[in-house]
Amino acid sequence: MPKAKVYITLKPALLDAQGRVLQSALQQLGFESVQGVRVGKYLEVELAPNGDPHEQVEAMCQKLLANPVIEQYRYEIEP
Amino acid sequence: MPKAKVYITLKPALLDAQGRVLQSALQQLGFESVQGVRVGKYLEVELAPNGDPHEQVEAMCQKLLANPVIEQYRYEIEP
Repeated sequence: MPKAKVYITLKPALLDAQGRVLQSALQQLGFESVQGVRVGKYLEVELAPNGDPHEQVEAMCQKLLANPVIEQYRYEIEP
Repeated sequence: MPKAKVYITLKPALLDAQGRVLQSALQQLGFESVQGVRVGKYLEVELAPNGDPHEQVEAMCQKLLANPVIEQYRYEIEP
């Protein structure tokens, strides 16, 4: 059964508030070498083995999974 | 500057309610081949080039980034 791994992140130009909070929390815990944190989503989508998984996952990202205005995404398909 | 990519997911035995909602939404949009969705977090952590990045990221995951009771994590370090 093909499985898609989808990585969704904010576009680099946008401020990642959640990442800033994590960065600051890590630094306060003593991880002073942390220079930056960006937070994203990671999805695993299991697909039935019919149709073109690339085409399906691209459509899912465009229609529901990501917000293409502020987010970028990439995915890998495992057979 | 080393960059760590951290993937955090719920342990497989646990019900992923957010994933179920996404699965159902995708199916309603016509993506009937979707068999399952699991939702996780994806973090990119930039580190200063001192110390052992593996050791640092492992400690960050244990102390703050993941909840080891219900979540599992893995990471890759890019030099």
